Amino acid sequence: MADNTWNTALTSVAPNEVRVRGYDIAELMGRCSFGQVVYLLLRGEMPDEKVGRLIDAILVSSIDHGASPPSVLAARTVASTGATLSGSVGAGILAINESHGGAVENCARALTDVVHTAELKGCSIEDAAVEVLNDLKARKIRVAGFGHRMHTADPRTARLFQLVEEAGVAGRYIRAARAVEAGLEKQLGKKLPINVDGAIGAVLAELGFEPRIMNGFFMIARTAGLVAHVGEEWSRERPMRKIDPTNYQYDGPAPRSL
Amino acid sequence: MADNTWNTALTSVAPNEVRVRGYDIAELMGRCSFGQVVYLLLRGEMPDEKVGRLIDAILVSSIDHGASPPSVLAARTVASTGATLSGSVGAGILAINESHGGAVENCARALTDVVHTAELKGCSIEDAAVEVLNDLKARKIRVAGFGHRMHTADPRTARLFQLVEEAGVAGRYIRAARAVEAGLEKQLGKKLPINVDGAIGAVLAELGFEPRIMNGFFMIARTAGLVAHVGEEWSRERPMRKIDPTNYQYDGPAPRSL
Amino acid sequence: MADNTWNTALTSVAPNEVRVRGYDIAELMGRCSFGQVVYLLLRGEMPDEKVGRLIDAILVSSIDHGASPPSVLAARTVASTGATLSGSVGAGILAINESHGGAVENCARALTDVVHTAELKGCSIEDAAVEVLNDLKARKIRVAGFGHRMHTADPRTARLFQLVEEAGVAGRYIRAARAVEAGLEKQLGKKLPINVDGAIGAVLAELGFEPRIMNGFFMIARTAGLVAHVGEEWSRERPMRKIDPTNYQYDGPAPRSL
Amino acid sequence: MADNTWNTALTSVAPNEVRVRGYDIAELMGRCSFGQVVYLLLRGEMPDEKVGRLIDAILVSSIDHGASPPSVLAARTVASTGATLSGSVGAGILAINESHGGAVENCARALTDVVHTAELKGCSIEDAAVEVLNDLKARKIRVAGFGHRMHTADPRTARLFQLVEEAGVAGRYIRAARAVEAGLEKQLGKKLPINVDGAIGAVLAELGFEPRIMNGFFMIARTAGLVAHVGEEWSRERPMRKIDPTNYQYDGPAPRSL
Repeated sequence: MADNTWNTALTSVAPNEVRVRGYDIAELMGRCSFGQVVYLLLRGEMPDEKVGRLIDAILVSSIDHGASPPSVLAARTVASTGATLSGSVGAGILAINESHGGAVENCARALTDVVHTAELKGCSIEDAAVEVLNDLKARKIRVAGFGHRMHTADPRTARLFQLVEEAGVAGRYIRAARAVEAGLEKQLGKKLPINVDGAIGAVLAELGFEPRIMNGFFMIARTAGLVAHVGEEWSRERPMRKIDPTNYQYDGPAPRSL
Repeated sequence: MADNTWNTALTSVAPNEVRVRGYDIAELMGRCSFGQVVYLLLRGEMPDEKVGRLIDAILVSSIDHGASPPSVLAARTVASTGATLSGSVGAGILAINESHGGAVENCARALTDVVHTAELKGCSIEDAAVEVLNDLKARKIRVAGFGHRMHTADPRTARLFQLVEEAGVAGRYIRAARAVEAGLEKQLGKKLPINVDGAIGAVLAELGFEPRIMNGFFMIARTAGLVAHVGEEWSRERPMRKIDPTNYQYDGPAPRSL
Repeated sequence: MADNTWNTALTSVAPNEVRVRGYDIAELMGRCSFGQVVYLLLRGEMPDEKVGRLIDAILVSSIDHGASPPSVLAARTVASTGATLSGSVGAGILAINESHGGAVENCARALTDVVHTAELKGCSIEDAAVEVLNDLKARKIRVAGFGHRMHTADPRTARLFQLVEEAGVAGRYIRAARAVEAGLEKQLGKKLPINVDGAIGAVLAELGFEPRIMNGFFMIARTAGLVAHVGEEWSRERPMRKIDPTNYQYDGPAPRSL
Repeated sequence: MADNTWNTALTSVAPNEVRVRGYDIAELMGRCSFGQVVYLLLRGEMPDEKVGRLIDAILVSSIDHGASPPSVLAARTVASTGATLSGSVGAGILAINESHGGAVENCARALTDVVHTAELKGCSIEDAAVEVLNDLKARKIRVAGFGHRMHTADPRTARLFQLVEEAGVAGRYIRAARAVEAGLEKQLGKKLPINVDGAIGAVLAELGFEPRIMNGFFMIARTAGLVAHVGEEWSRERPMRKIDPTNYQYDGPAPRSL
């Protein structure tokens, strides 16, 4: 039989010792934020606290978006049939794809094109953005991560860019995001600001994550939302109800501040 | 047609405003840890920072456990067929059930029995633990969350109980966990210490979470691990390989400290 | 390392030969119906053609039930996000549980109770049915598989029982189904006829299938429906639409006969 | 609120009447094979019995392929954690993708290219096949559905082509399949015969099915296999075992004939 030995560089497990990327999990507990350890696991190195706070902010920004996203509707629909928690949450995860969460990855890919074009051609990020936008227009592709059906000035986006500045990691990808925003305004004759998914894509690209796993951040965060919605479905609703995707109301706590 | 209007108390969404349990997400970003916001979403109130750190520690403790857990094997098996990230991670989530992660919920249920028994009978937590253990023994049920196939003195457990003390939330459920440990030692004539799943169940019960959504914490945390494993499968392995569940090695960074 | 060798009695695979329960698949192709081979795979022996036709009829009866069942809504919701066929169909499968399809299994369990009670007590199936119904009533459990929200005289049920007679397999379980129907009428003072799920449970129990895999028949059949609905969603609808679970119309071919 | 009314042309449901593509399901039960009704549901028209037998043969050919395919390993891995039947089978479905089952769709796409090229250029199917193969070679793409890791002369393929002839539906796509086989032999200097997935793709293309739902046939058929494997896992194995993907044996019935 062929030798099927294989390798993993993520986590080592031995009796009474679990090490993520070399660090003892017990040492990380209580000293590192979840955001820092997510970064460590996915990138291989421990980030400083500011970057950890940035990852936490990305996870917080995506934790829930009410009851209408398809991931929530899929999870609640499955939960209403008597499914387990894993069956219900799993169904919700299955809805996180190109049209739902995928703008993170696709915006990061477009910004990567801008950065690479600038490098290859020795031009400015701004000129490269115009070139990439023209190319996308010629191929009739809409750049992902700009504009939103509901939010025209999403405060999550502004807050995220502010935290990027504070963490001192703003670089070519953030500049590319701004350049695409400016280029789109010129191309379309109206503002189409970067949305929260696009901004997350810009930040994750800046931090060096691969585009193809970026939707993973959305999945990690939204799993919390899915668990909450499944719990609420079980607590408040009867099995096999017809779940109207628009006809629902928020009846939780009134607006409040920290 | 019947009126299908329904309610959700989790998150309100309006143009340029997303509020989780009343708090503007943009305000939470960068000021609250992910653990705090997970608690807020699932329990309805914002915890203090110490409790937030405790939730973060629970998430960190469960983020990954190497390549052999069934959730990882399911995710990698599906990833190796050309599945999307959501398909692969979704398959991994489906493996989180009674035998994998479920000790959190089942230990919490047993400890809840102990606490309720003490209340009903007006006896001590310790006496109630003995009674619950005797009842389980009579029904030939093994109490979940005690003992581990691999870890005899899991440092994650010790660390978690230490953080519970620091957060000042140790109460009846932690005491019940200790009482069951002592009771098991007497019943079995050997130590069967609480494991990390059992400890998480004790802490989450202490914090007032419902047992039936407790596996959700494991899902949130492990989704990060699943994303990392799927990314590694894609990077390092060929499609449709035979994934041996035992014959793998860790080749990542050597042990290191913060 | 422990010896992990394991066994399967389902299908053997060798170069240029695939045998299901000993039969060469190439020999079965074109000579046996799919229903016969499903029976062969799950029960271990090849049934005669009449039983095969009965299995086919069960699969046909469950192949689709329009756009409102939760499995279809979950599959379409996921499909609308840009998911793959497997992700979409997989989400639909996850909705097949106790409240959706599960009456097959639960009715079979109740009828098994009736048959076992008659055997144990040496009484008639009819007396045993009354006893089981009284016991369920005392425990406030509704017997599964009787009555339907929409269909009061489901022609699928009548047809299935007719085919059971033709196949010559009607026995104690079919008699138990009739006895429960009669007992329910007496208990409730109104008719609550067996529905198609209950009838399938009765037939599968008569044929000797284990209750815990009976929902599998529903899954096999409905996978065809899910594939059709996903294909229709892709062909006729735009991504990320809000899928109203009640507000849809049938616009296919008018009623016609063979 | 926007009008969200939508349409479906698959199945109409009214009290005591379920019609698939206009036909009363109760009328179809016992008179039409499952294969005929699958065709009816997916294509809109009732095929004759020979075509129905062909669909049945396709479903039979794909019903199971032993314990090593990734769909089976994913389903068994999830089943071993205490998952429900739907969670386990759903995980198996998630593994049916480009590298597992996907050759059906991709072969059909290549054959469609051949047929369209012949039409566009007014050349023979054989010349078009050479052109498509040269084009694929230039783009370094391997044509799907030809050659097999294990089977060099798969009897299922021969049987399927025989049934196509008997059904009288062999046409341009079957001819294209033969032309690609001949072209590949010339291009590679050795035989790389069409495999069972490729043959199914050729037949389904001939019958007019869309490539993007063709994997659905594999899913329908294999769901039966997945149910059987989950049932066997539950019956014969302990929870949380390590499932070795190669180290298993067949211990079912010895070879036998109809």
